[in-house]
Amino acid sequence: MKLTIKQRAQYSFFLPIQTRWADNDLYGHVNNVTYYSYFDTAANTLLIQKTGFDPKSSAFIGLVVSSNCQFNQELSYPEIIEVAVAIEKIGQSSLCYDLAIFKQGSDSAAAQGSFIHVFVDRQTRKSTPISKEMRDALAEYASP
Amino acid sequence: MKLTIKQRAQYSFFLPIQTRWADNDLYGHVNNVTYYSYFDTAANTLLIQKTGFDPKSSAFIGLVVSSNCQFNQELSYPEIIEVAVAIEKIGQSSLCYDLAIFKQGSDSAAAQGSFIHVFVDRQTRKSTPISKEMRDALAEYASP
Amino acid sequence: MKLTIKQRAQYSFFLPIQTRWADNDLYGHVNNVTYYSYFDTAANTLLIQKTGFDPKSSAFIGLVVSSNCQFNQELSYPEIIEVAVAIEKIGQSSLCYDLAIFKQGSDSAAAQGSFIHVFVDRQTRKSTPISKEMRDALAEYASP
Amino acid sequence: MKLTIKQRAQYSFFLPIQTRWADNDLYGHVNNVTYYSYFDTAANTLLIQKTGFDPKSSAFIGLVVSSNCQFNQELSYPEIIEVAVAIEKIGQSSLCYDLAIFKQGSDSAAAQGSFIHVFVDRQTRKSTPISKEMRDALAEYASP
Repeated sequence: MKLTIKQRAQYSFFLPIQTRWADNDLYGHVNNVTYYSYFDTAANTLLIQKTGFDPKSSAFIGLVVSSNCQFNQELSYPEIIEVAVAIEKIGQSSLCYDLAIFKQGSDSAAAQGSFIHVFVDRQTRKSTPISKEMRDALAEYASP
Repeated sequence: MKLTIKQRAQYSFFLPIQTRWADNDLYGHVNNVTYYSYFDTAANTLLIQKTGFDPKSSAFIGLVVSSNCQFNQELSYPEIIEVAVAIEKIGQSSLCYDLAIFKQGSDSAAAQGSFIHVFVDRQTRKSTPISKEMRDALAEYASP
Repeated sequence: MKLTIKQRAQYSFFLPIQTRWADNDLYGHVNNVTYYSYFDTAANTLLIQKTGFDPKSSAFIGLVVSSNCQFNQELSYPEIIEVAVAIEKIGQSSLCYDLAIFKQGSDSAAAQGSFIHVFVDRQTRKSTPISKEMRDALAEYASP
Repeated sequence: MKLTIKQRAQYSFFLPIQTRWADNDLYGHVNNVTYYSYFDTAANTLLIQKTGFDPKSSAFIGLVVSSNCQFNQELSYPEIIEVAVAIEKIGQSSLCYDLAIFKQGSDSAAAQGSFIHVFVDRQTRKSTPISKEMRDALAEYASP
């Protein structure tokens, strides 16, 4: 079941990432696993830049409970890619990210996926509600 | 939508993997991205060991077109984990793997997921049918 | 035996690299191993951009025979770092890179090191002399 | 300046590591950077197993201040490699590891190197002396 390919215009937050030599595997393209590393990096950067989240000291942390990706097109070092992040859904204590990777100059996603963060207390690992401040900060990045 | 947790008895192929220092992220547990690296490693090892596939010289290669994972439990270096692989479905030129990760001594999966390989010609990248020999070799690893 | 800390003014080629979530290890800083990934990425990018080297199709490839790094300062996701590359020595068929990593806005290297590429024929893996064109292209990046 | 190739008989601590799909780079062999990941994993495992060090809770942590590696031979997924660790020198608050990687069934090192851990207080990051207990526990792993 192939999904409709995401378009650049559907997003407003983008993080450029320099690919690395070792991102390329034996087949000469970026290994499928590495796309998730791009997703993880971009989604956490959105949290850090837009909500003040600090992965080293905030009282709560986001644990990934599920993720998925559809690969539309090959990527390859040394290109610089752009990772788009939108917020698909905000639950009581969970956040579903809508993610896509674009080649420079391309409007159609080379890959697209999503993952869910459940926010938990850093010490007890019990789920913790998402604050009003964080909801407000993320509102403008909601998926259309 | 949480899936039923997979059990060790559902699998017959297991690859033990030594976790590494850098598998642990800032939160002191194996980063979610790394689980896909375990999946990729174990599924390709099944192909190599049981079907004679050679990633460096075979005429065809397997490209991942989609993948997903549900995280049930934290893992942490320095533990050795076991990755289970079964074949969920064999299509004309695609293979869907059913994957699960077990902590040593545990019967319930710490994570479970799937990914799809489409086999293509190494040079032209056109899809190529899965041979009868490969189908026969994989038959005994079919998901129940 | 601690080396003198390298300065930004000693270099003319810089590659900015976005750090990634998983670059940070358990201790909340970029894992020492990852610095070598920054080095590898930047040195190969210099070859690709300035000498026309193509890792996928050139008749020769560069194999690393030794490397080293001195860590002066901690780095941490989500910062963007800059990797400086100079050519320390060009031999008959080998290239020694002089490398340093700078935090944005800092003149003193957070880390510095070197590695040696021996160029070999892609097929036979026999050493192959560095061409005059490549020497000329790299001349302007020589270490002072 | 090539070093004498290390031999298996020089070591008494070995950690087997399953190589992973993504360890192989574009050139079809384990990327040079990954060797350092094997070193880091094996040396920390020696600390954990033999001295009771706990990277998540011990009062002190080991920070890498320098490292180096000489690459003698190619490695390639899916092989299982063995990483040997010995203690080259114990200082007031630093530990120099003597490391080597062996292919299964081979007595000569495929790679060899060293790195230095400086132990510091987890909070203040000030250097902290190595305890008598740790010195005693590591004594039997001293390099010959």
